[in-house]
Amino acid sequence: MKILFLNGPNLNLLGTRQPEIYGRDTLATIEAAVQVRAKALGVTVEFRQTNHEGQLVEWIHEARGAFQVIALNAAAYTHTSIALRDAISAVGLPVIELHLSNIHAREPFRHVSMIAPVCRGQISGFGAFSYILALEAAVNVHQPA
Amino acid sequence: MKILFLNGPNLNLLGTRQPEIYGRDTLATIEAAVQVRAKALGVTVEFRQTNHEGQLVEWIHEARGAFQVIALNAAAYTHTSIALRDAISAVGLPVIELHLSNIHAREPFRHVSMIAPVCRGQISGFGAFSYILALEAAVNVHQPA
Amino acid sequence: MKILFLNGPNLNLLGTRQPEIYGRDTLATIEAAVQVRAKALGVTVEFRQTNHEGQLVEWIHEARGAFQVIALNAAAYTHTSIALRDAISAVGLPVIELHLSNIHAREPFRHVSMIAPVCRGQISGFGAFSYILALEAAVNVHQPA
Amino acid sequence: MKILFLNGPNLNLLGTRQPEIYGRDTLATIEAAVQVRAKALGVTVEFRQTNHEGQLVEWIHEARGAFQVIALNAAAYTHTSIALRDAISAVGLPVIELHLSNIHAREPFRHVSMIAPVCRGQISGFGAFSYILALEAAVNVHQPA
Amino acid sequence: MKILFLNGPNLNLLGTRQPEIYGRDTLATIEAAVQVRAKALGVTVEFRQTNHEGQLVEWIHEARGAFQVIALNAAAYTHTSIALRDAISAVGLPVIELHLSNIHAREPFRHVSMIAPVCRGQISGFGAFSYILALEAAVNVHQPA
Amino acid sequence: MKILFLNGPNLNLLGTRQPEIYGRDTLATIEAAVQVRAKALGVTVEFRQTNHEGQLVEWIHEARGAFQVIALNAAAYTHTSIALRDAISAVGLPVIELHLSNIHAREPFRHVSMIAPVCRGQISGFGAFSYILALEAAVNVHQPA
Amino acid sequence: MKILFLNGPNLNLLGTRQPEIYGRDTLATIEAAVQVRAKALGVTVEFRQTNHEGQLVEWIHEARGAFQVIALNAAAYTHTSIALRDAISAVGLPVIELHLSNIHAREPFRHVSMIAPVCRGQISGFGAFSYILALEAAVNVHQPA
Amino acid sequence: MKILFLNGPNLNLLGTRQPEIYGRDTLATIEAAVQVRAKALGVTVEFRQTNHEGQLVEWIHEARGAFQVIALNAAAYTHTSIALRDAISAVGLPVIELHLSNIHAREPFRHVSMIAPVCRGQISGFGAFSYILALEAAVNVHQPA
Amino acid sequence: MKILFLNGPNLNLLGTRQPEIYGRDTLATIEAAVQVRAKALGVTVEFRQTNHEGQLVEWIHEARGAFQVIALNAAAYTHTSIALRDAISAVGLPVIELHLSNIHAREPFRHVSMIAPVCRGQISGFGAFSYILALEAAVNVHQPA
Amino acid sequence: MKILFLNGPNLNLLGTRQPEIYGRDTLATIEAAVQVRAKALGVTVEFRQTNHEGQLVEWIHEARGAFQVIALNAAAYTHTSIALRDAISAVGLPVIELHLSNIHAREPFRHVSMIAPVCRGQISGFGAFSYILALEAAVNVHQPA
Amino acid sequence: MKILFLNGPNLNLLGTRQPEIYGRDTLATIEAAVQVRAKALGVTVEFRQTNHEGQLVEWIHEARGAFQVIALNAAAYTHTSIALRDAISAVGLPVIELHLSNIHAREPFRHVSMIAPVCRGQISGFGAFSYILALEAAVNVHQPA
Amino acid sequence: MKILFLNGPNLNLLGTRQPEIYGRDTLATIEAAVQVRAKALGVTVEFRQTNHEGQLVEWIHEARGAFQVIALNAAAYTHTSIALRDAISAVGLPVIELHLSNIHAREPFRHVSMIAPVCRGQISGFGAFSYILALEAAVNVHQPA
Repeated sequence: MKILFLNGPNLNLLGTRQPEIYGRDTLATIEAAVQVRAKALGVTVEFRQTNHEGQLVEWIHEARGAFQVIALNAAAYTHTSIALRDAISAVGLPVIELHLSNIHAREPFRHVSMIAPVCRGQISGFGAFSYILALEAAVNVHQPA
Repeated sequence: MKILFLNGPNLNLLGTRQPEIYGRDTLATIEAAVQVRAKALGVTVEFRQTNHEGQLVEWIHEARGAFQVIALNAAAYTHTSIALRDAISAVGLPVIELHLSNIHAREPFRHVSMIAPVCRGQISGFGAFSYILALEAAVNVHQPA
Repeated sequence: MKILFLNGPNLNLLGTRQPEIYGRDTLATIEAAVQVRAKALGVTVEFRQTNHEGQLVEWIHEARGAFQVIALNAAAYTHTSIALRDAISAVGLPVIELHLSNIHAREPFRHVSMIAPVCRGQISGFGAFSYILALEAAVNVHQPA
Repeated sequence: MKILFLNGPNLNLLGTRQPEIYGRDTLATIEAAVQVRAKALGVTVEFRQTNHEGQLVEWIHEARGAFQVIALNAAAYTHTSIALRDAISAVGLPVIELHLSNIHAREPFRHVSMIAPVCRGQISGFGAFSYILALEAAVNVHQPA
Repeated sequence: MKILFLNGPNLNLLGTRQPEIYGRDTLATIEAAVQVRAKALGVTVEFRQTNHEGQLVEWIHEARGAFQVIALNAAAYTHTSIALRDAISAVGLPVIELHLSNIHAREPFRHVSMIAPVCRGQISGFGAFSYILALEAAVNVHQPA
Repeated sequence: MKILFLNGPNLNLLGTRQPEIYGRDTLATIEAAVQVRAKALGVTVEFRQTNHEGQLVEWIHEARGAFQVIALNAAAYTHTSIALRDAISAVGLPVIELHLSNIHAREPFRHVSMIAPVCRGQISGFGAFSYILALEAAVNVHQPA
Repeated sequence: MKILFLNGPNLNLLGTRQPEIYGRDTLATIEAAVQVRAKALGVTVEFRQTNHEGQLVEWIHEARGAFQVIALNAAAYTHTSIALRDAISAVGLPVIELHLSNIHAREPFRHVSMIAPVCRGQISGFGAFSYILALEAAVNVHQPA
Repeated sequence: MKILFLNGPNLNLLGTRQPEIYGRDTLATIEAAVQVRAKALGVTVEFRQTNHEGQLVEWIHEARGAFQVIALNAAAYTHTSIALRDAISAVGLPVIELHLSNIHAREPFRHVSMIAPVCRGQISGFGAFSYILALEAAVNVHQPA
Repeated sequence: MKILFLNGPNLNLLGTRQPEIYGRDTLATIEAAVQVRAKALGVTVEFRQTNHEGQLVEWIHEARGAFQVIALNAAAYTHTSIALRDAISAVGLPVIELHLSNIHAREPFRHVSMIAPVCRGQISGFGAFSYILALEAAVNVHQPA
Repeated sequence: MKILFLNGPNLNLLGTRQPEIYGRDTLATIEAAVQVRAKALGVTVEFRQTNHEGQLVEWIHEARGAFQVIALNAAAYTHTSIALRDAISAVGLPVIELHLSNIHAREPFRHVSMIAPVCRGQISGFGAFSYILALEAAVNVHQPA
Repeated sequence: MKILFLNGPNLNLLGTRQPEIYGRDTLATIEAAVQVRAKALGVTVEFRQTNHEGQLVEWIHEARGAFQVIALNAAAYTHTSIALRDAISAVGLPVIELHLSNIHAREPFRHVSMIAPVCRGQISGFGAFSYILALEAAVNVHQPA
Repeated sequence: MKILFLNGPNLNLLGTRQPEIYGRDTLATIEAAVQVRAKALGVTVEFRQTNHEGQLVEWIHEARGAFQVIALNAAAYTHTSIALRDAISAVGLPVIELHLSNIHAREPFRHVSMIAPVCRGQISGFGAFSYILALEAAVNVHQPA
């Protein structure tokens, strides 16, 4: 089983960007922790990051046939991108929506997720641990216990 | 470490109520699965359910001193109860907000959570597995890995 | 055939409360009139009243298996209670929504019914006679002429 | 006692139009059932149907002096016609608002009734039986039991 | 110079309809008063009334070439009719919008006039005298003093 | 009979200010025309202009006992001044609201009049002639023909 | 194959009405062009125009059994008529919504089409050529290439 | 003269709950201070607290005949409870609405009071001293100086 | 200790203006009652009234150094004046917002207070007695018991 | 004459993506059909697709001087992209807006087109045939028949 | 060339008022800096401040003929004054809108400027330096480089 | 000191695009003028333009350590890009928001700036001169005079 972790805009700055909101882990640190847990769970994980909406769309397209589940931290594009939403609907894979910060506790424009209605579920607010939870959710979505 | 799982209105009907939305597990089945995982994690878990908003408020009050984290599926009261929100603020314990269905993919009035701004994070849409994820999140919130 | 009439908050004051809006009949008088008509129609009717949202939720739960139709005057909770709405969806019984006053002719916040989308129909504005109409509607819903 | 039943746009297609929403009875069938019950109740009933807003307005005008109560299924004009509302206010007769489908359970633009604030009450969602309930309500409005 | 006075729905009931809002003058009485003043001003006036939106549209069409100014009391259609608005734009004649009651002091839905943006001006709230003012305005619009 | 014409902010620039909207007449020219017509009608008229909201409020106060009707062109304060509205309610004199331009055909924020609900009627869009119409309306309000 | 072209309010003035918006073709000219193309495509076309909402409703009713597709320029009624929407739903024929001007580039109230959700598609903004496109779309809807 | 002080959800935690917002006084301390002042004023005061909306409704019912004025700190239910509003209307006693914090200076959802329109007045923002002011207001409402 | 009572527009008419809303006391009567109570409390009180927003702003400025607390009945300016709000923020003195009528029970535009977020608390709806309560609140704010 | 067909995000998946909404034709199939018709009409057509908003902007820029008309299926960017709107305004070429599905019959966020106000017209809802209609519209816009 | 700097309510307190928002410079200090720069640029500058909306209106009127450009810090009146907007339109001089703080980063009610649509441009958020920038902008507007 | 000028979508067309709104200067001309003034001020300036949101995000990232201030004309992305907003927050550099046209005087969707709350200040409406003002503001922000 293969899971694709996609990361959206500004997440390349993780660890150095507003640590009081996003924590001090870098994306590399998080990926390392996810890989450790993935190994334990016997699944394969791939991590990618981009600041381009179009690139996220294309990576979702490419996931068809190559991955069984997508874990998606779309960051800022969560709230505005219909293109991402359509891409998710188009490929038909289960998608786990994840966020480092609790988007429902921040500015009102972050309370709305354009992609939530086409995702399986949402995990929001647990910092780097949101990725571990998303990994477990992905495995469970694919093979319910 | 002790975690209090609180369940709000209509969750006593779980398993028999709209299984296409909420799944076929009963609350007892879910609790059993949570207890198994809790044991493995070395934590103590207590489950309660009520249909009364005031009872939920009082159980949150009682958690002070007796529990370290609350996992709260407030169900319908999620979207309307300022009393729950105030109770959470008042006791100061970390609260994990959880939902069986993906509330962001349902009717608009379920997209708004009155309690989210005072909770640590939200897990929504993974059916019974949302409880397992909430358990893991609760442990992590208390003792970050 | 058994029909459960549920009455929400403040309806215990009926007859003494704002008679220019709600009329001069008490809930007991109304129940008596409903029982007379029910007898004539050959159906059994039970009347309950509570000021607690959670109690209404639980009475709806209990109706499963014991009653064929619910006639519900949720009063103030009509406009705010998602818990009632979820309870109605959960038990799957036909529910007749009824109101003494014409809620669509009063303050704007009374124009919205949170429960209407999960009820069979609505009867609003005929005073005590709304109960008689609800009784007839209940019988017809169960056994269409 | 004479009651005027007015039917608005598209109701001439009843029985053939979206039976999953409006049922399989034609307007003629419904009228027949209403006439039977009216006879039993000792009242006279007249049925009319039009697709023209202006015609509905004029029939409401004509009812003054000729009828004691109007039962009005304004259909689509329910939600947009201030002219109907003004006509009802102008003639001063009690008007029973009725709908085949439960308008509060359909699209949002059907939740608003422009005429409700000037009608006695509303009956909505009982299919053809809504007409029977409206007949009984009309009789009761004229001669409260 | 010829002026066409058009009157919309329910104005045929004037004098008998809610006199506390619309006054006790009938449309005939008002027309008589307008004719007297028109004679004094040396202009010709024609009065028409209809309850049909489509008829109002067509009378506006016919006014081209036959009248120099239209005085329009569109009544209920004022607030909803885009067809009237388009008709006014289409014929290009100056139109004086008039109302018996002060529409800005009544229900919110009467505060909006769909036709005002294509009319010369609005006179609202002076009862039957609104017609006399509209007549004077019409003459002045055609031949500014 | 004495009528007080009150003019609000920027009306002192009339004739030189945006003549395509407000016309080329100065306030003095308009007053002269009004005085001529007032003489013909046998009434006394007084004209005042100020750019200060507080001054308008005080002139309305002073009108009690000294004038029978106020004709008020509140200009920009029409849309924002609750103080003017309260002043009109407080003194109890009939007030004729008048506007040079058709406020309902301009920017949306000019469509709302805060004072309309406490005025007798509104005349809007006839340029300088709005003042003549307001004069006639004032006389008619005081002594209905 | 027979196609019914229905034209709503004010379209009888076409060619003389605001040519900068609607073009200089009359409805007769447009019909002639449509008939030419229809002949080439081997289909029969009938053109009707009315200013009455109720008439449009009835022509839609009559189309059942007599026509295979309706091409509908509902003009002003596009934005307000629930009666038209219900008529389209009731008869179940495919309807092509067409507009001369680009309604999405005009006033906000023209951006909303009450009938679009029950039509097959919309063609808007190509002047008289919108009718030719609607004809081709109608043929294609009936017999997809 | 007897005054009933009713306290809503979470007020049992007063003194320990967010003291920067609600102050350090417990409900017992506040009651003691109120009793002292009540004695000085020669009136009797009774204090109650509950976290249940239904209980508040019932205490308001019971106040009829037993108390002359109610001082109500409905806390979170202030902003959502139509049931409380209806209870207040039903019993007809004067009710003084009171709040510890200045609700108009907090989150927008606390700016709206569902009960204010049926209360005599509101005192908001003076901490424990709000109770003393409410006591004085209650005495004055009953026996204006 | 010195307290400045500021009164906004139309309050000079108090006692003669809409007594059913504002009561029959004049501002002078109220001031006299306040002076009596102030003497008893050992504090100095100064009363001012103006109809000019700018004057209120300047009196608030002048209060710095001369008064310890301001009691402000801003009347109509309560709902629209950002200038008053900024003045209060600028001088940094505690301000008690007071109203004769219960603004939350009147028209919706009176429910919003632009100044509340920068005031200590609000007293609303007790007629002339609101001033006495504001006086006590002012003393308590300065020297908490 | 040369026409540029631009296709936005996710259209590369056409034929495999949600065929119940978008049909079973691939973009290549559609282009082939358009090329056939273009040949028949004697015009040259070029097809491009991208998932990047910035690329669409740049292709619109490049069209100046190279193409006479653009046919644009902006897909998801239709509803959010001000950049596309500005690009269209900037190059000044006529643009035909086209959609496979009837966007006015889908989710509300698809009802708004940010680009419509700067396009000539819109064709929406005819599946692959929308492209043929757009081609004909493009030819007609360039050389009106 | 002469430039008039107008300053609105509360700006007389500058330097002492909320320095964390508005800085520590007084209006006199700012004027001095502006005069220095004006001298260097060879232009004449005049500074005025008032707390009265009406006075600002009149100073704008007086600027005609006496100044070539106005630099306006309308402070709180920026967001509410239609009178200022009308004054700017009336005199036809170019106006530079300036703000000390970044109004778009503060409370929502400060994001809207009623005067922006009739000003040349806006400078917001640079503290005292906003005045220097406004001076340069004013010179450039008058004599573009 | 180094300042980075970033230019968003469609600004590469400057000078040829709608000169009545954006002026006739090209971006190269503007850069030249900025370089001249920068030299005079002793600072280094770099100019970049892109039509890709993701590229803007990345250039903002790269500015950390390399530039002291960013001057950002985000053009269309100003109003929709949360990604830009997050990038600005992440890098922590002061950003000057600039616009050629007065965005507050154009379409409503241009009145909202998603980036303003995280920028130092905004300069809007002075055409090419906005860049000179932004340069001066940038220098001042870095080294306040």
